[in-house]
Amino acid sequence: MAETVLKLKKRMRFMPVLIFQVILMALFFAYARYGGDKHHDVRGFEDTHVMIFIGFGFLMTFLKKYCYSALGFNWFLAALVVQWALLCQSFYHMENNAIYITKKSILEADIMSATVLITFGALLGVASVTQLLFIAIVETAVGCFNIWIVLDYFKAADVGGSMAIHTFGAYFGLGASLALGYRKKLDVSNSLNGASYSSDITAMIGSIFLWIYWPSFNSALTNSNGEYQRAVINTYLSLAAATVTTFVMSTAVSHDEAKLDMVHVQNSTLAGGVAVGAVCNMHITAGGAVAIGIGAGILSVLGYSLLTPKLTKLGVIDTCGVNNLHGMPGIYSGLLSVLFAYLATSDLYGEELGGIFPEMSQNATTVRTSSQQATSQLSALVGTLAISIVGGIITGTLARSTIFDPLKETEKYSDHPEWELP
Amino acid sequence: MAETVLKLKKRMRFMPVLIFQVILMALFFAYARYGGDKHHDVRGFEDTHVMIFIGFGFLMTFLKKYCYSALGFNWFLAALVVQWALLCQSFYHMENNAIYITKKSILEADIMSATVLITFGALLGVASVTQLLFIAIVETAVGCFNIWIVLDYFKAADVGGSMAIHTFGAYFGLGASLALGYRKKLDVSNSLNGASYSSDITAMIGSIFLWIYWPSFNSALTNSNGEYQRAVINTYLSLAAATVTTFVMSTAVSHDEAKLDMVHVQNSTLAGGVAVGAVCNMHITAGGAVAIGIGAGILSVLGYSLLTPKLTKLGVIDTCGVNNLHGMPGIYSGLLSVLFAYLATSDLYGEELGGIFPEMSQNATTVRTSSQQATSQLSALVGTLAISIVGGIITGTLARSTIFDPLKETEKYSDHPEWELP
Amino acid sequence: MAETVLKLKKRMRFMPVLIFQVILMALFFAYARYGGDKHHDVRGFEDTHVMIFIGFGFLMTFLKKYCYSALGFNWFLAALVVQWALLCQSFYHMENNAIYITKKSILEADIMSATVLITFGALLGVASVTQLLFIAIVETAVGCFNIWIVLDYFKAADVGGSMAIHTFGAYFGLGASLALGYRKKLDVSNSLNGASYSSDITAMIGSIFLWIYWPSFNSALTNSNGEYQRAVINTYLSLAAATVTTFVMSTAVSHDEAKLDMVHVQNSTLAGGVAVGAVCNMHITAGGAVAIGIGAGILSVLGYSLLTPKLTKLGVIDTCGVNNLHGMPGIYSGLLSVLFAYLATSDLYGEELGGIFPEMSQNATTVRTSSQQATSQLSALVGTLAISIVGGIITGTLARSTIFDPLKETEKYSDHPEWELP
Repeated sequence: MAETVLKLKKRMRFMPVLIFQVILMALFFAYARYGGDKHHDVRGFEDTHVMIFIGFGFLMTFLKKYCYSALGFNWFLAALVVQWALLCQSFYHMENNAIYITKKSILEADIMSATVLITFGALLGVASVTQLLFIAIVETAVGCFNIWIVLDYFKAADVGGSMAIHTFGAYFGLGASLALGYRKKLDVSNSLNGASYSSDITAMIGSIFLWIYWPSFNSALTNSNGEYQRAVINTYLSLAAATVTTFVMSTAVSHDEAKLDMVHVQNSTLAGGVAVGAVCNMHITAGGAVAIGIGAGILSVLGYSLLTPKLTKLGVIDTCGVNNLHGMPGIYSGLLSVLFAYLATSDLYGEELGGIFPEMSQNATTVRTSSQQATSQLSALVGTLAISIVGGIITGTLARSTIFDPLKETEKYSDHPEWELP
Repeated sequence: MAETVLKLKKRMRFMPVLIFQVILMALFFAYARYGGDKHHDVRGFEDTHVMIFIGFGFLMTFLKKYCYSALGFNWFLAALVVQWALLCQSFYHMENNAIYITKKSILEADIMSATVLITFGALLGVASVTQLLFIAIVETAVGCFNIWIVLDYFKAADVGGSMAIHTFGAYFGLGASLALGYRKKLDVSNSLNGASYSSDITAMIGSIFLWIYWPSFNSALTNSNGEYQRAVINTYLSLAAATVTTFVMSTAVSHDEAKLDMVHVQNSTLAGGVAVGAVCNMHITAGGAVAIGIGAGILSVLGYSLLTPKLTKLGVIDTCGVNNLHGMPGIYSGLLSVLFAYLATSDLYGEELGGIFPEMSQNATTVRTSSQQATSQLSALVGTLAISIVGGIITGTLARSTIFDPLKETEKYSDHPEWELP
Repeated sequence: MAETVLKLKKRMRFMPVLIFQVILMALFFAYARYGGDKHHDVRGFEDTHVMIFIGFGFLMTFLKKYCYSALGFNWFLAALVVQWALLCQSFYHMENNAIYITKKSILEADIMSATVLITFGALLGVASVTQLLFIAIVETAVGCFNIWIVLDYFKAADVGGSMAIHTFGAYFGLGASLALGYRKKLDVSNSLNGASYSSDITAMIGSIFLWIYWPSFNSALTNSNGEYQRAVINTYLSLAAATVTTFVMSTAVSHDEAKLDMVHVQNSTLAGGVAVGAVCNMHITAGGAVAIGIGAGILSVLGYSLLTPKLTKLGVIDTCGVNNLHGMPGIYSGLLSVLFAYLATSDLYGEELGGIFPEMSQNATTVRTSSQQATSQLSALVGTLAISIVGGIITGTLARSTIFDPLKETEKYSDHPEWELP
């Protein structure tokens, strides 16, 4: 009898998620309205959608026996978070007590869900699905608040989300990882914490699709055609340069007969997209975009090679190395945005100035100088770091509760606890 | 000598297909003309194209030793059917004895080919490629007639094809499966009828791409920007809600320690797209879309858990469970279209009313009331069910002929009979 | 000590590539400017991008133990080449000593990189990565010169690049293969030169994505909407017909019990896209497109079956059979372009004539007749063949130098020399 109850309890363990889903439904019924034909022609939605569900999902299949979880939980989390983010984000911009949904707002929800998936990357294989669901729901709410801080309070420019998405997701994840206290439990002998030949190949599906559509992601929320085209070109060039650099650096730092490391190839190649994100719509010049990409490739490979082992020893597990792909390149991009905001002049940007830096427009209530804008960029970066780290630590601490079924050591990096396996 | 003739006969077994291909060529020469620049800007063509060839193809690779066949025959069938459907569909709308081909008409051919691929899903691994080719050619002709019945005769609304594509394809397949008489031959001990770890992962490529581009599929044939955007939003929300619900339900009905079942994850997640299909361009509200998705997830998982085993015992093999992904969710969508047609008013829809329900437009010859439209929706659903089931049974009965090389029991679920294997 | 130097030298072996990357950066700083909003709405960029990085990359994963290399080197080479091609191509069209970058020019750089990846296909598994990098850099410069010959000097029509991309890349590769002198070293007993069950499936990801987006590729550089739509329709029909034909032919030529051969399915299906490339925007009629596709399927399968073994014996290794997918179908397309240029009249093409054949426009300085245009098409084809074969042989001869680390026999078709393996 007790066993039956226990089994039933196990079967019903996701019921709170269904209840949350029903609450979301009720909120949609109460507040959501169709946005008519406004923003129906937003760019980049389909490409971003591929990045979220194929890109992140497959990239995380590199663990040899965690592929069902990587793909499945990525899907589960993102499907939940996009609905929740659609509501959370819109609550800051309600009109007549209603939320008007357009393709643009669901694009923004997709983009928001990336924060949660980046955090998932840090905790891959070590957090239980219940912990992940809890963290995802909290992180989305905090992340939407942070975006409001970055874009509406500081009026910072961050078109590719390098601060508000990448930096935020990475450090929220590292904060949570620290707090979850895996330090004591770290078992480097767990042979499942690694790739197989086939899992490295499926991971490449994710990695390459992320890479391909990154120009669409970074340019999706631009305002004018010139700004849009600049964002595409800069992202493309930065990614290409980061990719070339990654291959060169990977052999340079190799500890195994100067061979290429798939971890670098799958991840550091993408750092060029993060690094250029906050400035891709600015006048950084094509040469500048290439330079930023070279820097990103070097930074990211060195991060994997030198920093990740140190962090692991300090008890901060980062399974996918999100610090090297999203964290440090995100900070790098934030700092670049300080620089390029400082260099921005109305001569250089012409009529596009107000589209990129709204407070520098002649139509703004108090016209900002470029130094003031630079200060705002820095404030947004520092604010994002503070909110994400503190938010991550608090959320991770709460997630330690046994009600979230933490994994036993033997259950880590394995599909076995959650999936029927063939 | 006799052996040589037999070998030659085997080599030449697809020659009738080449002859059919040449006949198609002749028909194109005789009737097809370029449509100029009309409809060159139709939406969703490329995304739908990915769904047909990558989506369906990879979804069916879940069988561990039928992956070459799943991908190869999916491609073979669809490449044949799109040409045939392009002609069949257009014969109902000829002008001056000519067919004017546009991107829209090849999009419609792609959509039509989905019926055949759904039917393939029911028969996966148990019908020979020759049987499949025969069934595909017949089904396309019948399916094009059925679409004419739904859209031109009953003037029903079915923008996402939930009746004319999903319901039709599923019940044509189940009819054919029944008639092919596998009942007597069912061998549950065939160990090839199942997934491997790697085949479940490649199946996810198909499943997730189908999911990602479903909003493009459902919205492809909308008329106005507002209607288009509503179709995208509703499909997106229904899919997201169905996905969350699928994960919750999969553990709830699990018979193996409350674990997640990849069959549910790969398929029931998509039921949200089918269920909202016929009504996605209507004013169902965002909350309504979420509710429909929740319902679809529950319906589909329960179908896999409770109904498929019963159907199999009754002799209706349904390898992919198309009844749970396309069939029942399609009927569900058809019934929803009855409801929302009944609720439609010109106050609610404004100028879009005639685009969605042409006979309710003030410009129609006899203006339909909403109850009349609701009746037409129901008639279209019942008609589709009747035509598909009867058509499937007749076609399946014909396909039993030995000229179509039925598979022996040991050849089922295996690439071995048709492919050079490494 | 000597060993340490040797190790360091090995680690640093890609440093010349980083130096080249820095030179590219300097050239971008010196010459590249943003193109404003010009061409921001070019079609087909994202789809072509998928073809280059996912399509070519995964198609080449068919070798069982060369998947990391196929994906990794494809990415490395293409990321380098797109930057280099962007500069090389633009040097022929500089304005005020500056290059104006738009989405169209990066699309053209993507297209150009296909030549290098086709060449990679010929040399797959037998050339070292250092040799490939050297060949890629030279080939890009020669290929950009050849495109100038085809489009600017001969003013030939080649919208899908069947001559300038496919024919060029294939015969440059075969020339290089001949010169690299593998003839003496061919070891047919190398068991790694073949597919595994799983590598054939990942190859299908590439093959199908190439197939799906080929209409976007061929139509990307069209000028008017009517021409664009014709290019999409013709490519779609040719591909579909080639696919059906490939399956029929594969069993017909089979030497193993009339079974289907994955090599044909992965490659000859695509020959329809190459074969229609140079004429897809012309008035070839829908029936003509189907006929071209049937011809391409037959040509390509027969090439794999009859010609490739002969070429291999002659010392021209062609691992992917690029002669059958890109080479012969490219020549076939070039010859078709001679025919359809000859048949072109202003009655048939109307105002689109000048967009397709610029020198036949009434606004051209000396208006060409259709026979003159046909002669130019032939000249472009012959010129391309000459430049690619001679260029390939010279480049391959230079690449034999030991400074490019040629592979030992035991290192061929294997990821082992260059990758850390799990």
